[in-house]
Amino acid sequence: MTVEEQFELLKRGTAEIVPEQALKDKLERSMKDGEPLRVKLGIDPTAPDIHLGFAVVLRKLRQFQDLGHNVVLIVGDFTAGIGDPSGRSETRPVLSADQIRANAETFTEQFWRILDKSRTELVFNGDWLGKMSFGDVVREASRVTVARVLERDDFQKRMNESRPIGLHELLYPIAQALDSVEIRADVEIGGTDQKFNILMGRDLQEAHGMEPQVGLFMPILPGLDGVQKMSKSLGNYIGINEPPNEMFGKVMSIPDSAMATYFELATDVPLDEVCAIEEGVADGTIHPMDAKKRLAYKITKMYHGEEAAQKAKTEFERVFSQRELPTEMPDVVIPADILKDGKIWLPKLLVAAGMAGSNNEAKRLIEQGAVTIDDECITDSSVDVEIRDGQVLRAGKFKFGRIRIG
Amino acid sequence: MTVEEQFELLKRGTAEIVPEQALKDKLERSMKDGEPLRVKLGIDPTAPDIHLGFAVVLRKLRQFQDLGHNVVLIVGDFTAGIGDPSGRSETRPVLSADQIRANAETFTEQFWRILDKSRTELVFNGDWLGKMSFGDVVREASRVTVARVLERDDFQKRMNESRPIGLHELLYPIAQALDSVEIRADVEIGGTDQKFNILMGRDLQEAHGMEPQVGLFMPILPGLDGVQKMSKSLGNYIGINEPPNEMFGKVMSIPDSAMATYFELATDVPLDEVCAIEEGVADGTIHPMDAKKRLAYKITKMYHGEEAAQKAKTEFERVFSQRELPTEMPDVVIPADILKDGKIWLPKLLVAAGMAGSNNEAKRLIEQGAVTIDDECITDSSVDVEIRDGQVLRAGKFKFGRIRIG
Repeated sequence: MTVEEQFELLKRGTAEIVPEQALKDKLERSMKDGEPLRVKLGIDPTAPDIHLGFAVVLRKLRQFQDLGHNVVLIVGDFTAGIGDPSGRSETRPVLSADQIRANAETFTEQFWRILDKSRTELVFNGDWLGKMSFGDVVREASRVTVARVLERDDFQKRMNESRPIGLHELLYPIAQALDSVEIRADVEIGGTDQKFNILMGRDLQEAHGMEPQVGLFMPILPGLDGVQKMSKSLGNYIGINEPPNEMFGKVMSIPDSAMATYFELATDVPLDEVCAIEEGVADGTIHPMDAKKRLAYKITKMYHGEEAAQKAKTEFERVFSQRELPTEMPDVVIPADILKDGKIWLPKLLVAAGMAGSNNEAKRLIEQGAVTIDDECITDSSVDVEIRDGQVLRAGKFKFGRIRIG
Repeated sequence: MTVEEQFELLKRGTAEIVPEQALKDKLERSMKDGEPLRVKLGIDPTAPDIHLGFAVVLRKLRQFQDLGHNVVLIVGDFTAGIGDPSGRSETRPVLSADQIRANAETFTEQFWRILDKSRTELVFNGDWLGKMSFGDVVREASRVTVARVLERDDFQKRMNESRPIGLHELLYPIAQALDSVEIRADVEIGGTDQKFNILMGRDLQEAHGMEPQVGLFMPILPGLDGVQKMSKSLGNYIGINEPPNEMFGKVMSIPDSAMATYFELATDVPLDEVCAIEEGVADGTIHPMDAKKRLAYKITKMYHGEEAAQKAKTEFERVFSQRELPTEMPDVVIPADILKDGKIWLPKLLVAAGMAGSNNEAKRLIEQGAVTIDDECITDSSVDVEIRDGQVLRAGKFKFGRIRIG
């Protein structure tokens, strides 16, 4: 492949490359010197489950690897080790160094479903940021102006709304930028919401007398709601490890308006084919449901293979089109010792059954009328329900289970 | 002395005490428990010469000591060790830890002319700030909002003028506030220009579960110009170690408008007496020159004793009133090896003669018409002058010397 061809391949699906010419130059030099580029991705060790939104970025990294380049995954154990010093957020627990390394063992396993392990370096930024002194921090911070840091979108927004910004938050972009200096990144990849931090990496590399990295920005994949960013904390995600039926069903639940974006970002379907589908749906020659089944099939096949995808499709059609119970009803085992006189608080039941990630998510589902026991819909999230072996618990269209009290 | 009397004494000459009631409470408790208060003063190790402006603060500390309390002098070796990381300012050289401790030996000697050494603790903030990690900095910074730090006057001013603020500068108030936490200060004293930093100390002590310190703010003594803050860098100061004649002459050179402030802040003259002098000058019963001689005498006596003050006064009257050369003309030795064909650049001569602290100060003096050689005034600061043994060099009204080429 020529440099120009490599560049075009890498550019596909990106939102922006800053600056494009620098990426061409780096590809060119790499080819000439036989020296692979170092492509950086920073990852948060506290939310390791990989979903389709995150996979957009990983699949782009895989393209770099297929062209012979190396990926450096930086686990952000430094900030995780500090936790949320303001104590305001519950979403950022303080993790010990051991927990973080153990976590990393587990969640990197999922990475190898997309990335080439032999071309991936895994590092922990606590190894260098943790060794910095107050004096070092002052020196690095002096390379940046306050005005520059406050340009970041979310800071701007909070200032306009008079919401407080902790002084420490201004230091995090510096920390992330120093990661680029430390590993001598040639390219850093991230969502468009990471633009500020990634460009800050360029600034600091230059301040350290280094050639600045190229920022490669991927569009944000919307979640199941079709609007907000797919994220674990919003609960609107499709994990790449979810079972085929679940994955297929979840894709089917996205709004039609999000279909084209999913085709472009979450599959390898060539762009002209995606256009043809879009046009077909627009002029009525393709039924949106058929287009979406094709999308769901493509995605499920990518992570579970052809056979599983085909089975998931058939199953979906049975259940959804014919409103039947699925043939394979999984058992959900509810430990007897969490029952009180045979009863349990309904949100707790959903969490115990694995149908909701938290009591709050469970309450939302209940109040939306999505929860039934033996076809009886319950919309009051405060009730304790009596449960028996063999009852069918259902949350939303695609989560079923036969209750087994164990 | 009752608590109320102690309070009134300590309040004299202050610009503000924040909050007053807390100081009374602390004095009361100290008296009851027999536990002296810890009164903090932060000092900059790079500009150690003590002048009358700084003495205002030291004299207030001495009052605390005379009431049985202890003073903690914090040498800011942490920031001095970092220097000016932006590299923009030449006024903040990077000093090694050894240089700083050696400096401290020298300049604390001057402190004992005012402070009671037996009630003074001398500490170096590098001892704790230097041990802080990046993580510690994040944790401490999280206790403060960006908006709060940017309230500081000079930050506001620079933002309004769109002049850049380095991100590291936001960390310095935190560092200073942590000093208060570390030494468990009961009171911190400083000029009114230190108000922000001292109140930040209160915030951080509270965040650390400590009773917050009281801020005791002294007014700023104007320099020889009567307008700007007395400071070494502006060259408008009177050092407490200056010889009696120099000290007396410098006080005589302040504008009449600054006299009352000097009486109040730089002497122990009772306030009602100061008022009487002010009124006398205003209604013409006291000649301003006589009032100012009394001021100069009081100040010179304070640092050099009665006899030296009397001699300085007589000498001043001789020279100034009768426009004579002083009887005791010091020799200024100019090393022969800095001459070139018997000539020397005039600013360099003034610096070598100890009559100017820098080439820039020397240039200012020359351009103001203050410099003469054998009564010939030279106003061109670019010239090389030919000098000979025995010539009289004069810079301003009170600096004389007979040139000796050595």
